[in-house]
Amino acid sequence: MQFSVLVDIRLRGGISDPAGATIERALPVLGYEGIAGVTVGKTIRFTIEAADAEAARVAAAELTESFLTNPVIEDAELTVEAMSPESGR
Amino acid sequence: MQFSVLVDIRLRGGISDPAGATIERALPVLGYEGIAGVTVGKTIRFTIEAADAEAARVAAAELTESFLTNPVIEDAELTVEAMSPESGR
Repeated sequence: MQFSVLVDIRLRGGISDPAGATIERALPVLGYEGIAGVTVGKTIRFTIEAADAEAARVAAAELTESFLTNPVIEDAELTVEAMSPESGR
Repeated sequence: MQFSVLVDIRLRGGISDPAGATIERALPVLGYEGIAGVTVGKTIRFTIEAADAEAARVAAAELTESFLTNPVIEDAELTVEAMSPESGR
């Protein structure tokens, strides 16, 4: 059975976010006011073949922790959904 | 009123995704099987000050289109939520 997985990766609190800080500094110059707390994260999406949703989640979590993120500085949130056979992706 | 905004940015279909392709090629070597269609995207989160949810959405959409994404190759999905005054972020 196919499952679609979304890994939403954010920097942990307290880790400096230079990309977000750069965007935030640029905004007033560009005429955008009232915007604060800009942070930049990463998403990784894929499909995974597994027996059931629990197996898909376990495999995706293992992959995320060992390979897709740096757990020292990043937090990841997993969303696993069964795919209908027709939907393709 | 403060709103929290999530901009979920993905490459448009058909645009090559070298980061995703690299991850996908590496997985079998690392012992992960059954994973396909790896794509890598970007998220930008911020808070915005606006009169109401509609105004927040309009301002965030304008900012996203003109500055945060390249609409030629990227699609963005906006999520705008009112923040409770206590929550901080």
